[in-house]
Amino acid sequence: MATPEVPQHPPAPQELLAPLSNQEVKERVLALAQPADQALTANLTSHVPFIEEVSGYIIFSGGKRLRPVLFLLASRALGRMAEPRHAAIFEYLHAATLLHDDVVDDAGLRRGRPAARVKYGNDAVILVGDFLFSKSYSLSVEVPDLRFVRALTDCTTHMAEGQVLELIHTDDLELGHQGYLRVIVAKTAVLLAAACQMGAIQAGASDETVRAFYDYGMELGVAFQMVDDALDYVGSEHEFGKPVGHDLEEGKITLPFIHARDHASPEMRARLLELARRGRQEPQVLTEAKEIIRAQGGVEATVAWANFHAARAQAALKPLLDGGQANPDLLTMLGLASYVITRRA
Amino acid sequence: MATPEVPQHPPAPQELLAPLSNQEVKERVLALAQPADQALTANLTSHVPFIEEVSGYIIFSGGKRLRPVLFLLASRALGRMAEPRHAAIFEYLHAATLLHDDVVDDAGLRRGRPAARVKYGNDAVILVGDFLFSKSYSLSVEVPDLRFVRALTDCTTHMAEGQVLELIHTDDLELGHQGYLRVIVAKTAVLLAAACQMGAIQAGASDETVRAFYDYGMELGVAFQMVDDALDYVGSEHEFGKPVGHDLEEGKITLPFIHARDHASPEMRARLLELARRGRQEPQVLTEAKEIIRAQGGVEATVAWANFHAARAQAALKPLLDGGQANPDLLTMLGLASYVITRRA
Repeated sequence: MATPEVPQHPPAPQELLAPLSNQEVKERVLALAQPADQALTANLTSHVPFIEEVSGYIIFSGGKRLRPVLFLLASRALGRMAEPRHAAIFEYLHAATLLHDDVVDDAGLRRGRPAARVKYGNDAVILVGDFLFSKSYSLSVEVPDLRFVRALTDCTTHMAEGQVLELIHTDDLELGHQGYLRVIVAKTAVLLAAACQMGAIQAGASDETVRAFYDYGMELGVAFQMVDDALDYVGSEHEFGKPVGHDLEEGKITLPFIHARDHASPEMRARLLELARRGRQEPQVLTEAKEIIRAQGGVEATVAWANFHAARAQAALKPLLDGGQANPDLLTMLGLASYVITRRA
Repeated sequence: MATPEVPQHPPAPQELLAPLSNQEVKERVLALAQPADQALTANLTSHVPFIEEVSGYIIFSGGKRLRPVLFLLASRALGRMAEPRHAAIFEYLHAATLLHDDVVDDAGLRRGRPAARVKYGNDAVILVGDFLFSKSYSLSVEVPDLRFVRALTDCTTHMAEGQVLELIHTDDLELGHQGYLRVIVAKTAVLLAAACQMGAIQAGASDETVRAFYDYGMELGVAFQMVDDALDYVGSEHEFGKPVGHDLEEGKITLPFIHARDHASPEMRARLLELARRGRQEPQVLTEAKEIIRAQGGVEATVAWANFHAARAQAALKPLLDGGQANPDLLTMLGLASYVITRRA
């Protein structure tokens, strides 16, 4: 399925529905994270104890379980709650990509502690990533609807292409808004989309409804990643549990940079590009680059775009709202879209 | 499914059926490798041209297409030739594991030229490996029989566990015959088994027949890998297109070593273990270790075991032979089992 389109002009501010407080959204998500968590433990079995150890290290390091929760929410919203064991598909897949990403990025920290590759070695985490990938598929073929596993193959193919795209665009200071969107769709949004889509499939939904849930997850994922990329320019390491302000150090060109570059005066733009180019050798010059990005409103513009996509996520589900009777799971999903915009870390 | 059992005693010499000459086997395999090759090119499309380049580099570097050929042979032997596009599943998966293996092993050469990771970097080959893995799955869900994709998930999970096992047993000088078998089943045999099994599934075979084809592929794969491991102690780099005699350098404990260790006099055994231990720091001492292994008959014993498994491969298919009318594809499969024993490289 396609990457969301980028409108020609920056989005006008859009009011988001906020049917629930952030606190309520959090509580409802946590309530579903618990069965998901139990399923993650129960299914993480291998004939090779070392695999369980490495997998456990990455999986039980405090993730928010957003992907399994979305899967369960989507299925329950459609009246047929999925088995938590199948929710594990999405967390295993997410963990597999994190393991491989950390090798690709030479990451030292992940969620505030040494990355698995630091503790167990690149060799082990590549192979355990492959194992978790296969484990996701093993679980998915238990659902006797070929649409289910087909959605997963579309998702993982798209994700793998996206990881390669991101690698290619490392240090690509010319990357535009559309190219950036392609990267974040593949690295983040497509898995959230698949979680919602597959929740709907396993509830036996029509193709049209399945599509609406896919679109919701896709737009939510884009909003989520954009907020993450904005926070990278403002958050603190303490809040995040991972180093912040490092996207530029790693050559990751994200929307705050793109916005600043494209809206600065010619002199400022030239200065920003020069600093970014020098930054790989002299990281200290990036402090000035980041100041320029903030001064040009790169952070606010990125959050505005995130807001635009969150509104589209809500719009995808609105037709399913029954005016009379509120479906609590649909409300939670709508609430999540406003939550991602207002969250801090 | 289970790893083949190891009999208590070394196998008695077993006569292999040789219904075809090696030359005939080769010709028949080549005839099927051609459509498989075309399918490999036709399906290797991505939105990201760089992915096609890296994938093409590993896939079109002169592999023998044994896995796709086995899939096509199995399906045609059962009267319903599979589409060559689905034969690509097995070569993509094989290529994905080679890409990841080369990173894990720090390999410099593959099939006589620089390994893909040397040319494109570890980052790229990890991610392109993930892409090829997903591509295999995408193709497999086109076959509208859930047994088909389920067989693939069993296979890849088993393979990933096996790669981790091999990593754990690196430098494990105590590894026994059964442990060695577990490793080679997972790293080689299980994919050959899946190719035969899935060929049978896609021909609509009964579970019993599917199982016979699985067993054939499993035993063939074990025989194939054992011969490879024996040749590592005798072949030349020229014959092989990859460095030989390097298993021990890399800490890979294979059957020739295990046999020599377990059949040598106590003094010789102690000497062999000492040399193997020192070998990681002082590779030159491994020349003597290899001489001991050869002198203890490690190579011949390994080939004898390979012969034993090749005979079991043939035994799995024999019940399917119709006494009167010879099925040319079954004969080719029987012939392949004797071919792997007598091949050189």
